[in-house]
Amino acid sequence: MTQPHAIQPEKKRILTGDRPTAPLHLGHLVGSLQSRVRLQHEYDTFILLADVQAMTDNFADPARVRANVLEVALDYLAVGLDPRHCTFVIQSQVPEIAELTVFYLNLVTVSHLRQNPTVKTEIQQKGFGEAVPAGFFVYPVSQAADITAFGAHLVPVGDDQLPMIEQTREIVRRFGGLYAPVLTEPQALLSAFPRLPGLDGQTKMSKSQGNALFLGDSADEVKRKVMGMYTDPGHLRASDPGRVEGNPVFTYLDAFDPDRERVQALKDHYRRGGLGDVKVKSHLVDVLDGVLTPIRERRAEAARDAGAVMALLEAGTRRGREVAAQTMAQVRQAMGLDYFSA
Amino acid sequence: MTQPHAIQPEKKRILTGDRPTAPLHLGHLVGSLQSRVRLQHEYDTFILLADVQAMTDNFADPARVRANVLEVALDYLAVGLDPRHCTFVIQSQVPEIAELTVFYLNLVTVSHLRQNPTVKTEIQQKGFGEAVPAGFFVYPVSQAADITAFGAHLVPVGDDQLPMIEQTREIVRRFGGLYAPVLTEPQALLSAFPRLPGLDGQTKMSKSQGNALFLGDSADEVKRKVMGMYTDPGHLRASDPGRVEGNPVFTYLDAFDPDRERVQALKDHYRRGGLGDVKVKSHLVDVLDGVLTPIRERRAEAARDAGAVMALLEAGTRRGREVAAQTMAQVRQAMGLDYFSA
Repeated sequence: MTQPHAIQPEKKRILTGDRPTAPLHLGHLVGSLQSRVRLQHEYDTFILLADVQAMTDNFADPARVRANVLEVALDYLAVGLDPRHCTFVIQSQVPEIAELTVFYLNLVTVSHLRQNPTVKTEIQQKGFGEAVPAGFFVYPVSQAADITAFGAHLVPVGDDQLPMIEQTREIVRRFGGLYAPVLTEPQALLSAFPRLPGLDGQTKMSKSQGNALFLGDSADEVKRKVMGMYTDPGHLRASDPGRVEGNPVFTYLDAFDPDRERVQALKDHYRRGGLGDVKVKSHLVDVLDGVLTPIRERRAEAARDAGAVMALLEAGTRRGREVAAQTMAQVRQAMGLDYFSA
Repeated sequence: MTQPHAIQPEKKRILTGDRPTAPLHLGHLVGSLQSRVRLQHEYDTFILLADVQAMTDNFADPARVRANVLEVALDYLAVGLDPRHCTFVIQSQVPEIAELTVFYLNLVTVSHLRQNPTVKTEIQQKGFGEAVPAGFFVYPVSQAADITAFGAHLVPVGDDQLPMIEQTREIVRRFGGLYAPVLTEPQALLSAFPRLPGLDGQTKMSKSQGNALFLGDSADEVKRKVMGMYTDPGHLRASDPGRVEGNPVFTYLDAFDPDRERVQALKDHYRRGGLGDVKVKSHLVDVLDGVLTPIRERRAEAARDAGAVMALLEAGTRRGREVAAQTMAQVRQAMGLDYFSA
């Protein structure tokens, strides 16, 4: 039996992805997509359309997950993720991830999973109470399978996701100690930009909160949504002094207006009074149009040939399976469960 | 999209199997193997060498599991399970079982699993406490995947395993209600013969208790083990009256001596006194030799060509994968996660 080796791609490999439960929005653009577009040139980038994970809390609505695989793929292409640099993989088509999940479940205790801070918070947020689906409860283990199946060295995450990476690292070390060190231990690549608030000023933009501006929204929808945005509720007349902090209109300008001096001037004016919300919002509409028009156009163009997009996904998924099958072969060998291959 | 159909083999299909953690013993012969040998002519019999399940509490010792796959296969052939009638399948080589497990985990809550009586009991027996491996905790879900992957109509079980079958039936109904009724809802086939006590008179014969008589034991080992068996501790001299109830020597005679009248005469004699333990045990050695000699000979013969046994397992596993892949294709279609096959 030859010594198994960890997968060694020439560039370091990154795994990112999304749960395809809704089209992507401005929050994704700022929080992950823009950074992925940069990273794709530096790293061997695998992007997982995590439909199996989406099913853990959407199992009663598989059609939603199915439909949004295409929507999210269109969003990827629209923002400039390039299939020449990125490998798009549909999770459910990679059985090796399920196989790894089942083996990794032996390496984690129920009480340890119960203490995972991210899962704890999400169980509360989703109001599962005692009726947590087991699939949802164990999803940190599935994520470890996602990350290690593709031998990812780095996983771009926000700091709320650090416990997931730590769980993966623990599983990798446990596996290595028990069997053989064939898995790659990933590191977190912390994303710098803070979370974009929703249109309503709530902490998080999300489809389920109804406070999202989607990448595919038309120019008219963008205008309508921005004009209806939450601002400083104490800023009743244009002449009143207004608050910039906690005012999502200014947070969006910070995130998207490349002209920093102009943003600073608008903030100063707003603070001292004399600048109406409609004026600032109109400016934000212009700024977002500048950002979103090319995205919207690329999205519409890609959407005209859904078959070609599915073909891209199929090719990416095929490459993903090849890598995952290689990992699984090493895992089987490490565990001695390679009965017929020798 | 055509309407998916449940698998319809000509004969009804049975799924049975064992966790390959040790060679099989007399308890297995009485509790399941003899009945399987009869059933194989009546049913399309799938026998699962459940190495993945064995790993849920033997993850630190995969070599033990690996080695016992061959040992258990030899036991199967030795007792007369015939590859012309039975399909032997190695669980770890069927990724579809892991895929089904991951999807089924969404259909069962953590609190429901916690209430499973079989799992509750086993968690206590194994002394896991709070440190239950998640893989062990969810194993009723994996069993549902085993049973449904092969479209089994019937599962031979003892009554302590009924909660497992009920869990599978619940998952099948839940899946059918949410997606489409493509899975076969299995029924329990209750085994009639009571559990064989260990050589020490303890309730259960098992390798871990050190009270087992293995099917592969030599004639000398059988003699040595039977002569050391627990009997009635109050039966000090041959002339004393002895107890037959709870005396494993008589339980074994009930199980294996075809001459019912002779067994009755021995019991009467033992009860009234005048029949020594050595005499009864010598008779039991003869009876067991009658049962075990042909098994031992067939086992030794099969063991001479381990390569041929592995080839049998490979062929069976290939057939198993074909059936499981068919089930998985229907499951994907039912959930709408068949992106590339249409």
